[in-house]
Amino acid sequence: MSSAPTGPLAISLGDPAGIGPEVIAKCWDSRGEFGLPPFVAIGDPRAVAAVWDGPIELVDDPAEADSAFDVGLPLIQLNAAEEDRPGHPSVAGAHCSLDSLEIAVGLARSGSASGVVTGPVAKEQLYSIGFQHPGQTEFVAERCGVAASDVVMVLAGPTLRTVPVTTHLKLADVPTALTSALIESRGRAALRGLQRNFGIPEPRLAIAGLNPHAGEGGQLGTEDREIIEPAIAALAAEGWRVSGPHPADTMFHARARAAYDAALCMYHDQALIPIKALHFEDAVNVTLGLPIVRTAPDHGTAFNIAGQDKADPRPMAAAIRMAAQSTLVRSDGF
Amino acid sequence: MSSAPTGPLAISLGDPAGIGPEVIAKCWDSRGEFGLPPFVAIGDPRAVAAVWDGPIELVDDPAEADSAFDVGLPLIQLNAAEEDRPGHPSVAGAHCSLDSLEIAVGLARSGSASGVVTGPVAKEQLYSIGFQHPGQTEFVAERCGVAASDVVMVLAGPTLRTVPVTTHLKLADVPTALTSALIESRGRAALRGLQRNFGIPEPRLAIAGLNPHAGEGGQLGTEDREIIEPAIAALAAEGWRVSGPHPADTMFHARARAAYDAALCMYHDQALIPIKALHFEDAVNVTLGLPIVRTAPDHGTAFNIAGQDKADPRPMAAAIRMAAQSTLVRSDGF
Repeated sequence: MSSAPTGPLAISLGDPAGIGPEVIAKCWDSRGEFGLPPFVAIGDPRAVAAVWDGPIELVDDPAEADSAFDVGLPLIQLNAAEEDRPGHPSVAGAHCSLDSLEIAVGLARSGSASGVVTGPVAKEQLYSIGFQHPGQTEFVAERCGVAASDVVMVLAGPTLRTVPVTTHLKLADVPTALTSALIESRGRAALRGLQRNFGIPEPRLAIAGLNPHAGEGGQLGTEDREIIEPAIAALAAEGWRVSGPHPADTMFHARARAAYDAALCMYHDQALIPIKALHFEDAVNVTLGLPIVRTAPDHGTAFNIAGQDKADPRPMAAAIRMAAQSTLVRSDGF
Repeated sequence: MSSAPTGPLAISLGDPAGIGPEVIAKCWDSRGEFGLPPFVAIGDPRAVAAVWDGPIELVDDPAEADSAFDVGLPLIQLNAAEEDRPGHPSVAGAHCSLDSLEIAVGLARSGSASGVVTGPVAKEQLYSIGFQHPGQTEFVAERCGVAASDVVMVLAGPTLRTVPVTTHLKLADVPTALTSALIESRGRAALRGLQRNFGIPEPRLAIAGLNPHAGEGGQLGTEDREIIEPAIAALAAEGWRVSGPHPADTMFHARARAAYDAALCMYHDQALIPIKALHFEDAVNVTLGLPIVRTAPDHGTAFNIAGQDKADPRPMAAAIRMAAQSTLVRSDGF
């Protein structure tokens, strides 16, 4: 493995009209309390100044961020074509948020930054400027030369990690979208990511059923037996520590959670309900399967509260801390 | 309203080979610590004696339970045709568990018992002796002369109550099973039950969406807009305090939970995942819409640990406490 990336974390501001600039600035404010390592933000300084009156330290190179970090929020300057007002997204802001993401990923790819944390973007705005990806994750995968199907999202909180096999599908489409091959590849990516990003040598993956009571022996649906079980058998045959299909309702209480390192879930809400019920303030979205470290807070742009000093910086702080930890784990050369 | 039922709670032992006898006996053991009111169990004393060496007080009439309760576990005796070994269910045990349920409900209907708490039964065993109902809830409804469609199950824990609109359906059948009329009638039964059993004069019901992000304006499915929204509008037009459709993943964290008295969920795991993630040890299954109080612990027979002194009595204790509270609320004549 390569030696440890030594640069700061690169943080894209996200949509300038969203809460990204505010929570990132607040993270710098509370860097001591939150236990945050040096980072450099990338975006329009006007978007930060509009919601925060702390010091901004413009830098040209991430290498300057370390020393600048003691003085102010280190920022690589991008200028949107026009200045957004908080809560009022624009096409210019969408371009700026995309540029910010592009640069952050580039810095991590080149080794100038040790990893990427992404601020929240507005997908509708991005689509309006021709963005072709379902979300930032797929964009980052492409820029890293990795097929989107080979990366997985893990939602990670202090006592639970969940990995959705399918994500933004209407519920009626989930049963037909599930295949043994898809579950296998997502499971494998999750297991490798638990090793690589979380430093767990022999990760345990608990795999959820699709139907109530995991189908109750076929009486409540056959997908658990015919689609999920073969995928579990295939992963087990490769030597992975996998279990299931587990009834989804009894796998997220404290004692059950202690028996695995991540839960592989069949659909969006199966993965998101338990993580947000248990860890709403500190769940982090981590992309596994990339050559770089990438995390994100598990919230959106929240335009409705932008610019009102209401945004909670704890999810962003958790994302920064987790990126830093993953960077350390990966630099150990696992 | 009738005056307060003054008898003890009637508790059916459930399947004699399951953990019902053990957790009920342990509840009597810890009646002080758990804060339990007098109750009378109904079932085969041999099933209790097989797993517990405490005192059993056989009674013929629930009226004797009050004084007997200080001396031993009050029990109305039923004898199974043969004695079950813990963990080894039988046809004779199934008959005994059904008789026990029948008598417990009858005692509550007649006013000799103040309410019913049901121990866990094995549905497969019951089906084998001709039981025609999907579960105990529907059986109790029939014995009370209430249509099964007019009762709802609420899973109630200290900080969350959830009510499933559909229950034991395979996931693929959920979207087509949902109708505005069904959501309305379940919602109405839930709201009335929150008034009647929980003493909440103006209950607030949060109604979940079906699809990720509640359909994201129709981009991720149309059920939220076309089926759930009209049901919410209809309930609101009747004056009920309802809200939604809410994205299911963001409605179960602490701040969100504080804004409603119960969450109406579209399918089994949407209701069961959050309640069990948050309140595995003390979630209670309460049947709303009945003329009598009926609760149950939210666990099954657990044949695999029966007779090993491993069963946790806390869920049964929570079910007994909640039945007692509901009895008091209802006797207030709400």
